[in-house]
Amino acid sequence: MNEAIKCYGSSEMIQKLKNTDSLFLCVIANTLTSRINGITGAGATPELTDYTPAADVELIMLGKTLCLPEIPKTVVGGSSTPTPAIITKAALDLADIPLLVADAGAAIKPNMPYISINETPGGDIRTGNAVQDSEKIFNNGFLLGRVLSKLTDHLVIGESIPAGTTTALGILTALGYEVDHKMSGSTPENPHELKHSVVKNGLECSRYTAEELKSDPFLAINAIGDPMIPAVAGIAMGSRVPVTLAGGTQMTAVCAVIKSISPDFDFNSLSIATTIFVSEDETSDINFIINQISDITIIAVDPDFGKSDTEGLVNYTKGSVKEGVGAGGAMLAAVLKGISVEEIRIKTEWLCKEIFKN
Amino acid sequence: MNEAIKCYGSSEMIQKLKNTDSLFLCVIANTLTSRINGITGAGATPELTDYTPAADVELIMLGKTLCLPEIPKTVVGGSSTPTPAIITKAALDLADIPLLVADAGAAIKPNMPYISINETPGGDIRTGNAVQDSEKIFNNGFLLGRVLSKLTDHLVIGESIPAGTTTALGILTALGYEVDHKMSGSTPENPHELKHSVVKNGLECSRYTAEELKSDPFLAINAIGDPMIPAVAGIAMGSRVPVTLAGGTQMTAVCAVIKSISPDFDFNSLSIATTIFVSEDETSDINFIINQISDITIIAVDPDFGKSDTEGLVNYTKGSVKEGVGAGGAMLAAVLKGISVEEIRIKTEWLCKEIFKN
Repeated sequence: MNEAIKCYGSSEMIQKLKNTDSLFLCVIANTLTSRINGITGAGATPELTDYTPAADVELIMLGKTLCLPEIPKTVVGGSSTPTPAIITKAALDLADIPLLVADAGAAIKPNMPYISINETPGGDIRTGNAVQDSEKIFNNGFLLGRVLSKLTDHLVIGESIPAGTTTALGILTALGYEVDHKMSGSTPENPHELKHSVVKNGLECSRYTAEELKSDPFLAINAIGDPMIPAVAGIAMGSRVPVTLAGGTQMTAVCAVIKSISPDFDFNSLSIATTIFVSEDETSDINFIINQISDITIIAVDPDFGKSDTEGLVNYTKGSVKEGVGAGGAMLAAVLKGISVEEIRIKTEWLCKEIFKN
Repeated sequence: MNEAIKCYGSSEMIQKLKNTDSLFLCVIANTLTSRINGITGAGATPELTDYTPAADVELIMLGKTLCLPEIPKTVVGGSSTPTPAIITKAALDLADIPLLVADAGAAIKPNMPYISINETPGGDIRTGNAVQDSEKIFNNGFLLGRVLSKLTDHLVIGESIPAGTTTALGILTALGYEVDHKMSGSTPENPHELKHSVVKNGLECSRYTAEELKSDPFLAINAIGDPMIPAVAGIAMGSRVPVTLAGGTQMTAVCAVIKSISPDFDFNSLSIATTIFVSEDETSDINFIINQISDITIIAVDPDFGKSDTEGLVNYTKGSVKEGVGAGGAMLAAVLKGISVEEIRIKTEWLCKEIFKN
């Protein structure tokens, strides 16, 4: 397609989707796991991660946050990196792509219309009892995916859930995948040891055996997952049009859940779109994980932030944030409508100046 | 178009919409006004009217109600008439029209995905303090209408709110329209005196003067309206595609609010679709009301229930229920896709047998 898009696996999907209209759906949720110190960068303090998903979608739809005075950002060594919602906003605004928000369990609800799939946030996975009824969330997601796919040619599903890579690690581990040091994270140093110990703790506290968890994805999510995963799995399975999962290694857990629910699922109509900051991340390996699941195309978009004079965006090239709020998939959807990645970068820089005064 | 469709005003809109794809949005809400004895038929008892909106949309989407064991119906003189949701379901299913549900303040939330615009139900209008912040509801509706109109050619907006004709009467009265004995209702005898006395009570208890209420539609709704009206007004005004307000005399209150907010609003891209049971109702006069507002086309669909051997449907021809849950607009949207009204009647009869064992 062009230099800014790297394709791992078949590029057939990109050809098929060219010039199609996309609907961008952002699924938001929280897990109390994000309160663990040092586990996520998606919020200025562990407590403020409660607000990040609502603030992210308010930012995209309204151009400002109403639920809290601050815009979400990741602070590392005194330098702050803005939420990837700003990239998503730039891409969707440029290409006039419709945005809908689905709540799969956000602690704080956004001040705008949103689709309610599930109200209650997930618990701390160290308890081994993280989600109340993931099958019900999945079923609601399925109904929603079925309806939305009547309204568009291409469904792009992003997410915002702080500590979501840790809960995704929990699910992949429970389902028996090899994921040691393979999951990505929102900070440059990626605290693998902490994440693995949290998952180990949760598995030990679960009332189910390893065999029980491995054979039942809903049990696995209930024990050690988060509410976003079954929602997105349901939406993707309910859709009758091609689906792009817009996210990093978290979306591999969605694929693993789909395969576990339906071993014959046709992954030819589903792909993952992410940023180059995930696909080329040296602290993780999304391709290694996905290859264990199925033959699933991964598309990585490079917004070329190295060229930027906005410090917060240059931080992305140093391993901060990397992806989130469907930034990679939103860029892809805009590119499919003829917008260039350079236009997206310039608009993102402009938004940083306007919104963050950065 | 055909014999089953009667058009009051210009038929240009029907020609323009022929063969277009519609999105059906059902806006649900409650008002404590429905607890007043004898004011509405939309529920077996005043208390059960809390469940009617959620049950209606569950019935359309799931083919059964989850929030309560009974299917909503109106009982008059020992004979029961099923909720018009059954007609809406028949029409949408036959034409494969996508359904979305928006909650503008339902007391009981449906067990399915729904778009949250506003959480809190309206109060009893006799207090003169019925809705907390109708402008906020309107603004959320506007945002939603803007997004949804990117996903369809034609937005059809239905409603389910028990006692909605009484709250609509309140708004029309506050805005200065002549509505004495003109509003429709869900029972054959239409308790005009009760409705007018409830409205009078509310106006007397309001802290605003008649002049203040007349000049500010949000004050009027806050005092003596319901949360459905500002939601639907916002959605209609936010839409960039043609809008059909699917309902009876309640939708005239939506039009009055739109005109009050924006005196120059272009009503050429908006029409009302209802059933023949409203447009030919001898206890009310929808055309008399609409003519005071603007030159707005009213389309009435006749499902010819006189032909039916299902007693509950024949009751519609005797003045029970008449309209609701967007039945008229759903039939119109199906007809625009080539479905005949006879097919809808047959499917409705079949659904009555399947679901109500009636």
